[in-house]
Formats: sequence, structure tokens, C-alpha cells
Amino acid sequence: MSTLIRHDKHLLGLKRLPKSELEAILNRATYWASVPSKVSNAFQGSFVANMFFENSTRTRFSFEIAEKRLGAEAINFTAAVSSVQKGESIHDTVHTLESMGIDAGVIRLKPSGILEELAESIHVPLINAGDGNNEHPTQALLDLYTIQQHFGQIAGLHVAIIGDILHSRVARSNLWGLQTMGASVSLCAPNNMQAPELLPYAPYVSMEQALQADVIMMLRVQLERHDQGMIRSAEDYRKHYGLTEERAAKLAPHTIIMHPAPVNRNVEMDDAVVDHKRSKIFTQIKNGVPVRMSVIERALS
Amino acid sequence: MSTLIRHDKHLLGLKRLPKSELEAILNRATYWASVPSKVSNAFQGSFVANMFFENSTRTRFSFEIAEKRLGAEAINFTAAVSSVQKGESIHDTVHTLESMGIDAGVIRLKPSGILEELAESIHVPLINAGDGNNEHPTQALLDLYTIQQHFGQIAGLHVAIIGDILHSRVARSNLWGLQTMGASVSLCAPNNMQAPELLPYAPYVSMEQALQADVIMMLRVQLERHDQGMIRSAEDYRKHYGLTEERAAKLAPHTIIMHPAPVNRNVEMDDAVVDHKRSKIFTQIKNGVPVRMSVIERALS
Amino acid sequence: MSTLIRHDKHLLGLKRLPKSELEAILNRATYWASVPSKVSNAFQGSFVANMFFENSTRTRFSFEIAEKRLGAEAINFTAAVSSVQKGESIHDTVHTLESMGIDAGVIRLKPSGILEELAESIHVPLINAGDGNNEHPTQALLDLYTIQQHFGQIAGLHVAIIGDILHSRVARSNLWGLQTMGASVSLCAPNNMQAPELLPYAPYVSMEQALQADVIMMLRVQLERHDQGMIRSAEDYRKHYGLTEERAAKLAPHTIIMHPAPVNRNVEMDDAVVDHKRSKIFTQIKNGVPVRMSVIERALS
Repeated sequence: MSTLIRHDKHLLGLKRLPKSELEAILNRATYWASVPSKVSNAFQGSFVANMFFENSTRTRFSFEIAEKRLGAEAINFTAAVSSVQKGESIHDTVHTLESMGIDAGVIRLKPSGILEELAESIHVPLINAGDGNNEHPTQALLDLYTIQQHFGQIAGLHVAIIGDILHSRVARSNLWGLQTMGASVSLCAPNNMQAPELLPYAPYVSMEQALQADVIMMLRVQLERHDQGMIRSAEDYRKHYGLTEERAAKLAPHTIIMHPAPVNRNVEMDDAVVDHKRSKIFTQIKNGVPVRMSVIERALS
Repeated sequence: MSTLIRHDKHLLGLKRLPKSELEAILNRATYWASVPSKVSNAFQGSFVANMFFENSTRTRFSFEIAEKRLGAEAINFTAAVSSVQKGESIHDTVHTLESMGIDAGVIRLKPSGILEELAESIHVPLINAGDGNNEHPTQALLDLYTIQQHFGQIAGLHVAIIGDILHSRVARSNLWGLQTMGASVSLCAPNNMQAPELLPYAPYVSMEQALQADVIMMLRVQLERHDQGMIRSAEDYRKHYGLTEERAAKLAPHTIIMHPAPVNRNVEMDDAVVDHKRSKIFTQIKNGVPVRMSVIERALS
Repeated sequence: MSTLIRHDKHLLGLKRLPKSELEAILNRATYWASVPSKVSNAFQGSFVANMFFENSTRTRFSFEIAEKRLGAEAINFTAAVSSVQKGESIHDTVHTLESMGIDAGVIRLKPSGILEELAESIHVPLINAGDGNNEHPTQALLDLYTIQQHFGQIAGLHVAIIGDILHSRVARSNLWGLQTMGASVSLCAPNNMQAPELLPYAPYVSMEQALQADVIMMLRVQLERHDQGMIRSAEDYRKHYGLTEERAAKLAPHTIIMHPAPVNRNVEMDDAVVDHKRSKIFTQIKNGVPVRMSVIERALS
């Protein structure tokens, strides 16, 4: 029974998360963003393990700030400085940290599919901080929060997700979350970056059509994941799918520009567009902290 | 004088630690395991440096949780991200951290023999978190704690330590600690993994004899420390010295199974035996936290 | 306006820092060194990011202790475990961490010149923890503090800085700070380690002349930065520019010996001289903590 309750507190993805849950998370994020004091003692004595089996600056940092602002103890584990190197499996590592008495775990993994399995066997809530090409729910939640903050609501908006859909956990989590919240989503990608399994859920549109959306959500090109043949050149990518200054200048006046960061400047987005007056990139990063506070609060409550 | 007092607070190994000291550490661990609140302010304002010149997930994590539960500040140093790379000696590093005002140091080292020397010249208590092939006292203490918790007492029990005795600091610390507490210890290892210098202290027995013990303490095979000739194959090792499902099934009903973890699954222990009903592996990990709280308390008091 | 105020709180270098500022920092360091309690709650709820784009044990550790003693939250970022590896620029990383709500940043960088630029565009105070070959102001401040502590005042003293001036940010920061405080500075280096741009500010003198100073400030030879041709051998360097036991024995009785550490023992300084009765090396390290507390306090106030 207590196991079931705990399983409800996992945040593995947005795919099966009902609208009421999304709204509850966004509401508490609004609360935490409004709190004047930077540190609460709401979760004093709680231990959260940040288990990064794949490197990340910004996500780990954002979670760590969120945990500390909630008064919890943050303990960092990074695969690069761990005994995972000497053959210890991810599974055993996570169960080991669980045995030491952590109250929740934030986890980032390169291989897809392991997280679901882990979540079945662990007794503390797990928060997905990036699961292969599968989901990255806190990124999508901060994107939802940013859109709602700007437009007042999400329902009825048209969001275009542009770029390397195939390899993007950000695209997938946003697709599920945005649709649950009532937005309509279009995808835009070169052929070799389209994910066929998403076709039943959202149409692939041309770059011209995508740029008509209310929200232009650009993705990071995972240059390191493509072999030479897939992207002829960054130049070529920019020409056909980059948010260039020219394209940004033609957007409707109410359209906003988003990117999960870090940007490959002058590849998927021109340098000047990053700091464009309608770019929400640094706002997204800022919103990540209260959104993650809300998610951790949900796990620890 | 104060230097002498401080030297008494080092925990370098169990070899010369009297029974009264062992009992005091185990008693305080029992206390800390029973405390309902997860964080105390007993050592607020104390700084403990975790100095890992050899990587480790679980041990560093366990110490860090223990330190934070005691209210102390934990500061982590890992050789892999440090200026040890630019030729700074371990000795200079430790004295530098001491000069910055730490109150105790937890230290793990690859080369044997340096720790004793360090402890002579340093003015803050040092806690050995793994010293080459020499000692790993907190691992043995948590093993003693686990055995005592299960059987009510340690005296009179027969403990068999099985595996790569030659390279095992865990085996050595357990040998000394178990004997001090009144257990009888047998060692079991293939010829090339026997440590001749331990012969005066404990007999080497056959696998069949070892499996008669009350406590089966398996060791991790340090696959990376053996060249090809020493272990013909992991398969071969498992066949002769592994705790297979077959062997586990034949153990006496009261016998418990221990391992310091991480396990090389299906080498020294079958996958199914790790989660065996008499396996204490995750209990050992759990017990590590209160045992280390007790050891840190001893250092800081 | 608030931006201007914040820019005044940066500590990028000592070159343009007025004497009144230096004195204020040193005075507060004296205060923090005298506080009996190890942890204050002066800056509870403040977040300080330690952003090390170049590895360092001692400096990061010293800052982290200083931050925690002030009651602030320390969050560590090290390039080696970050997404800087996947092409994220230093600039974007720092602005990302700023967006997450840090109150101050401590930063170490390998390439010179980036820091000034960063400081122009960031809205939180930055503290330079080592900027290429340019400046390392907290090291110089702790050196000033150590000299003042020993001699009662800095004005009127003769300080000789000996070694690899060309590559030394420590030499530059000390030159500016010492001169502002009224000391006279001499430089001493082999031809290929002299920095021509410093000639207008301080004379290069012979080793014999340098050893007449009240303060002998030795520099670490950055062995890794010189190709084979520049230093024929460490032996050769020691012979001409090392503080050997023989040279140390001939120093005036009141002269003190300093080094920013870590020492290349038996290269720029003989092993025995490190622990010489007039060596201030470990005193310098100790003083680093209250000096950095003072600098962080200045940033956060």
C-alpha cells in the first residue's frame, strides 16, 4: 500500500500524467516563485540524491538549488566520478543509495527503458531528469509554466516543436504535456530527424507552417549523436531549419521563442535570436527552479 | 598532549582497537539508528572533509549522509577533479585541507602505507575509508553491527571470509574486528588469492568447510587487479568459489550471507543469491549510515 | 543603477582597487578570523556558485568553507563534469547559473580576457578565483593579510616576487595590491619567465638582490606550461632561482618566506624550506578562509 502511494509520487514522464496533476504542479510552482524568502525549512531533514548517470550542468544545478531552497539536503552522484566505472550496474547503484535512506531520487540516464524498470522496484519517489530519448518531464513542465505565465493559459495555443525530434526527450515530454493542457502541437524536422512513432499524435509540417505558431519551440541539434551523413553540415541545417534573424523578423508579433538550452548558436538558432526580445530562453531557465521545487515537494510530501 | 588526544580519535584500522572501543562504537550506532529525526544539530559548525584519492560511490555517499545527519558540513574532495593531477602530493593536499580548518577528515587511498604516516603528522582526526589492501574499518564495523543485530552477539560465532583475501582490506578489517569480539574466523581462497601474512591468525579452509559457518562473508573479486593468468575465467572462479544458488540452498537454516558490495553478479555470487532471504547485503548498506555517524561522532567529540 | 552597484561588488582584480577597499577587506578578514563560532547565519538563504572552468583543489575548498561559515549555500560546478564538454560556452553557462537565482559567483577560468567581458553582462557579483595569467585577487589578499599580520603593516616593506612572473596571476595581483598598500616590489625571474609589460611598474633584480627583501614570495613553476626548451631542467631552475636550504639560511632574521602552494618541492623551493620556521605557507592557506569570507561578504552585502 505504502509502495503504491510512493509510486504515485514518481515523476517518470508526462505521457500518462492527468491534467489535474499538471495543474497542481504548475500551481505550486507559482507559489514557490512568489515566496520572498529564498530558503524554506519545509523539508529539513529530507535527503534528495541527484543521480546523474549522464553529465549535465544546468539540470543538476537547477535541481540542487530547488532542493536547498526547500530546506532538503542534496547529495550528488555523478557517474564520471563513481564506481559505475568498475562495473556496478545502474540498478545496484540506485538500490544502494535507497538503502542508505534517501527520501527521493533525481535521476538522469543515457539508456532508454531502464527507468521504468527501476521505478517498479524502488521504494522512494524517482524524478526523471532526462531519460535517454524518452522523456524529460521537468523541462516540459517549465516550458508549460513559461507558456502559461506569458499567455495566461495553454489551451487553444498552437505550439511548433522544431528540430531533432527523433532524439529529443524534450520534444516528447512537451508533446504529451501540451496536448493534455489543450494546446495543438505541430512537429517540424528534416526527414532523418523525424520520429515515426509520433505520427499518430501530431502532424509534421513545413518550416513555413511551423513559423505561424504562437510558440516556436526550437530543439538542440545533438550534433554529437549524428554521424556525418545525417547532417551534411551545420550550415545546411541552419539554412533549412534554423531560426535565423530573417525568420525571427517575420514571426507574428505575439509569437514567443523557446529553447531548452544550451543553444548551438548559429546552428538551430542565430546568435542574435537567443537574446531576441521575444526569446524566453533565460526565463525558461529561471522558471526551472520553482517548477522543480514543486516537483520535489510532490515527491517528498 | 592535545595531539595525543587527537591521535586517539583517528580510526585507521581495527587491528589495534580494543574491544571496549568496538563496543562503544557499536552502541552509539544503535543509538543513531534509533533516533527518529533524520537530522540532528549535534555537530553544527563542524566541517568534515571527504578526501577520496580513489573513487567510490557508496562509501562517500554513506559518509556524506552520516555527516549531514549529525549536522556537520561535508566538503568533498575527489582526486579525479583536483590538482593532485598537477603533481601535488597526497600529503600536501591533506595538510592544506587541515590548514583550512576542517575538524575531521575521511580518507580513501589507493597506495598502502601512506595513511599511518599521514596520521602521525596531522592534528585532526582521520577516518580510514579504504586504505589500499590494508584496512577498511568502517566496512568491518558495519559488518560487525549487522552480525550483532542479527544474532544478538558476535562471540562464539563462526565466520567464513571467502574470496580474494590477498587484495581485500575488508577481509583484514573484519578478521581483526571479529576476533576481538570473540568470533572464530576461517578464510577461504584459491591459492593465488591467499595472503600468507594472515596464516598465523586464521586457517585457510576448503569451500565445503567454509559453507558450514554461521556467517558467509563473500568478497568482491577485484577483477581489474588480476592479470589474465590469475583468474582463468570468471566462470571458473564461480564454479570453485562462487556462492551459487546450489551452494546457497545447502546452507544451514540460520546462516546469513554478507557481501561488502558492489557484487560481481554471477561471479562471486549468483544473481538470485543477492536478494536471497538470508542475504544481508542491503541491510549492511543501510547499517553503514548509523555506524559512520558513530565513528564521526567519536572523531568530533 | 542597481547594476552599477552590483558591478562595484565584483572582485575581478586588485589593479584598480583603491587602498580603502583593500583595507576594508583586510579588516573584515581580521574580524572573521576572530569570530569564535565556526558557522554564522549572516547569509542564510544566499546561494554562491563556485564555477571552476579550470580544476583546483585548494581554492575551491577554501571558498566553499568560507561560504558555509557565512551560512550561505555553496553549489559547485566543475568544467570536467559539465556540459561545457558538449560545446556550451563559458558565457552561456554563467548566464544560465545567474538565471537560476544565484546571489554571487566565484569563477576560475583558463583563458584570459573573458572575465572582464562576463562581468559587464552579468547582474550578480563575480569573484575572480583565478583568471588565466591575469589576476588571482583572493590569493594576493590573503598574502597581504599574512604580511600585515606578521609585520603589523605593509607600507615600507620590500617584497621580492621570484619565479615564473610571465605566467603568474599571483604575481600580478600581488604587485598591484602590494604597491597600493605602500610596499616596494622587486621581480626576479630568468629571461624567458619575465613579463615585459610589468617593467614600467617594478624592476627585475638579480637573485642575490631579491634575497635581501623583507618578504620572499616564491612562485610555483608551471612546469606543464613550458615546453622543453624553456626550462632546461628542474635541476637547473633550482640551482639559479630555487629557494634552497643554503639560500634560506642566509636570509635576514626578520625575512619571511611565502608561496601560494602547491610547492614543486626541490624545484622552486627545497623540501626542508617548506616547513622552515619563517615559512608562512600553511599560515597563508589558513588565512585564505577569513579573507574569502570577507570578500564573499562584500559581494553579498
